[in-house]
Amino acid sequence: MTKASKRRLSRRALLAGTASAVSAGVLSGQDNASDPTKVQGELATEVGERSRHETPKRSYFSSARSGSNTPLQDLEGTITPSDLHFERHHGGIPDIDPDNYSLLIHGMVKQPRVYTLPELKRFPARAMTRFLECSGNGFRTYRNPEANREKTPQDIEGLTSTSEWVGVPLKTLFEEVGVLPEAKWFLAEAMDAAVMTRSIPVEKAWDDAIIAYGQNGEAIRPEQGYPARLFLPGFEGSSNVKWIRRIELAAEPFMSREETSKYTDPLPGGKARMFSFVMDAKSVITYPAYPVKLPDQGFWEIKGLAWSGRGKIVRVDISTDGGRSWEKAELQNPVLPKCHTRFRFGWEWDGRPATLMSRATDETGQTQPTLEALKQVRGEGTIYHYNHIRAWTVRGDGSVVFGEKA
Amino acid sequence: MTKASKRRLSRRALLAGTASAVSAGVLSGQDNASDPTKVQGELATEVGERSRHETPKRSYFSSARSGSNTPLQDLEGTITPSDLHFERHHGGIPDIDPDNYSLLIHGMVKQPRVYTLPELKRFPARAMTRFLECSGNGFRTYRNPEANREKTPQDIEGLTSTSEWVGVPLKTLFEEVGVLPEAKWFLAEAMDAAVMTRSIPVEKAWDDAIIAYGQNGEAIRPEQGYPARLFLPGFEGSSNVKWIRRIELAAEPFMSREETSKYTDPLPGGKARMFSFVMDAKSVITYPAYPVKLPDQGFWEIKGLAWSGRGKIVRVDISTDGGRSWEKAELQNPVLPKCHTRFRFGWEWDGRPATLMSRATDETGQTQPTLEALKQVRGEGTIYHYNHIRAWTVRGDGSVVFGEKA
Repeated sequence: MTKASKRRLSRRALLAGTASAVSAGVLSGQDNASDPTKVQGELATEVGERSRHETPKRSYFSSARSGSNTPLQDLEGTITPSDLHFERHHGGIPDIDPDNYSLLIHGMVKQPRVYTLPELKRFPARAMTRFLECSGNGFRTYRNPEANREKTPQDIEGLTSTSEWVGVPLKTLFEEVGVLPEAKWFLAEAMDAAVMTRSIPVEKAWDDAIIAYGQNGEAIRPEQGYPARLFLPGFEGSSNVKWIRRIELAAEPFMSREETSKYTDPLPGGKARMFSFVMDAKSVITYPAYPVKLPDQGFWEIKGLAWSGRGKIVRVDISTDGGRSWEKAELQNPVLPKCHTRFRFGWEWDGRPATLMSRATDETGQTQPTLEALKQVRGEGTIYHYNHIRAWTVRGDGSVVFGEKA
Repeated sequence: MTKASKRRLSRRALLAGTASAVSAGVLSGQDNASDPTKVQGELATEVGERSRHETPKRSYFSSARSGSNTPLQDLEGTITPSDLHFERHHGGIPDIDPDNYSLLIHGMVKQPRVYTLPELKRFPARAMTRFLECSGNGFRTYRNPEANREKTPQDIEGLTSTSEWVGVPLKTLFEEVGVLPEAKWFLAEAMDAAVMTRSIPVEKAWDDAIIAYGQNGEAIRPEQGYPARLFLPGFEGSSNVKWIRRIELAAEPFMSREETSKYTDPLPGGKARMFSFVMDAKSVITYPAYPVKLPDQGFWEIKGLAWSGRGKIVRVDISTDGGRSWEKAELQNPVLPKCHTRFRFGWEWDGRPATLMSRATDETGQTQPTLEALKQVRGEGTIYHYNHIRAWTVRGDGSVVFGEKA
């Protein structure tokens, strides 16, 4: 055990006396009704439920309930429980009967084909644990951090989650239909009320794209695209088209609404970055963060998540002095590519105001810029791909707020 | 794509005509009410639910509902959804208020201590994705495989599951209390109506034991020990004491009921193996398995899970001819130690009866024995630690039954 935690424990009330006195003190003092050792417990169930003392909840993305945010500050490890995975939809969640589901692949192919769900599941499967992040994640604090001092990690960064995804490699299907060499892009079209469409470069299919039907061990959830979705590891959320019903191969991108008026990154001077699919290296501290109030000085573990659409996270640096000095955090093994990576950093809080920051670096060498550096390149108007360094400030009274100022 | 699946697809009805005809055929033909693209979908929710078309369920371990089995045949990948994790309890599931929870550590220690839940969570955490298996898993078919031809993987092997577990290393707490050198064992005691107790060698605490409070990203579930349990990677389920309230260090094991009358392995001649904690290398085929009926010949992917309490699985061999010949299956990456490892094997079924077997080997070289070999060592009376090779037989009509005979 570290010196820090020893100090901490020595400050606390310690039990005096012999072990048996300790034992008596702990194990008695409850009446039978509230003593779980005195009453028969609940019997087994077909499907379990959370403890009534644990009520993690997604928060709504907007008043229109067009999405919801994952409660990052309530979670441990790297997996996001499927019922708490963030959601975002443009026409609500369709109710799809899997018996009526099929996926058409056509366009610049030798032989167009339609696949039912059992047909998709019959192919060799591939599984991978990967993050998924909405490209707009973090939009609240890019322009106006000061107005968001009292927001949680969920409020600010909750549009990112991690699952074990299972499906058929898109490569398998593209080989089956015989994609023509002239085909450079494909349209992915959803079976929802928005008929969501995105154009994706064919290379992604030859690389690691899957048509996913499994999530965290079970069937994909309705809000994640039941019965099947496109999953593009490391690409921005909206391009991972859910409820996918049609793929059309073509020589050029289709220039649909969601890649022209939306999901482009405006730049200073009236230009814009288009098809900026890959999510950049990023990290968020999930503890301590608003609304936590540290009860006392001493040892606290700074915890959070880091990820990159380009590959593995190789290091996360932590600053507790607002970016003047940095130290390496510990990464939870195994570190997987394009996946939430849990980091932990033992911190001895001396009771004075402290500004906590995290900075992730991925295996391609990409690291997080400061907010100022990002704004210099992108300007004030950009609305996607915010991977700048974030800060939480611990005040002298132990309360924690977003941003660099106490 | 493999030749096998090309053959398969060529046997199916293919869509004729141009892509646009294909498109029209697939995308029309539904009235507006049943066409999800014509109606606004459901809005976001705070906690999601499964599709109404997906209803995986645990099955009861016994008529007393003292446990339940994971629906292995319904699952993909390696993670078990927390609400489908197998359960086993000896006095029901206690209802524990985390505010009333504490863990006492005493006995042969320099300074006994009591830890509240926030105190346990304040220590540096450790996370690991690991299997947990009841040592009696597989008991149905050891003595009488013939009576269990029409049982599912869940019925036969459902007392095993995998989660990402998070907690404080027991090593940290043992250093805090100052475990004395004479202490070689510790008692772990539960806060349930059975006051479940097991004796564990101290070495396991110095190695990889944790007091777990997190499971698959969230708080541990009630049936898994909420708010905290002992988790001993690779050790038989019952030793991973749930709802843990007390740890007592001692020079000798305590010889409690659950390690004397139960959880010992009777041997021929009236002797018994005691404290046989480590779960052996094992594997189960989850597809195809009863009650699946393969609709046609051609390519099918044989899928299943392999694991070992001793470390990583290094290979899984598959036989489709009842053990005469074996071929290597593909393992899903990353392969983690003491964790369910998904294996997949592409199989071309020729329509004749076939007996499928899987055989796992771990990094220590341990592999699965045949049922006959295991019985020779353990005799008929043993009731724990069944890691022999299992078989499923595919009949000529495509139906699948447990065992080696069609």
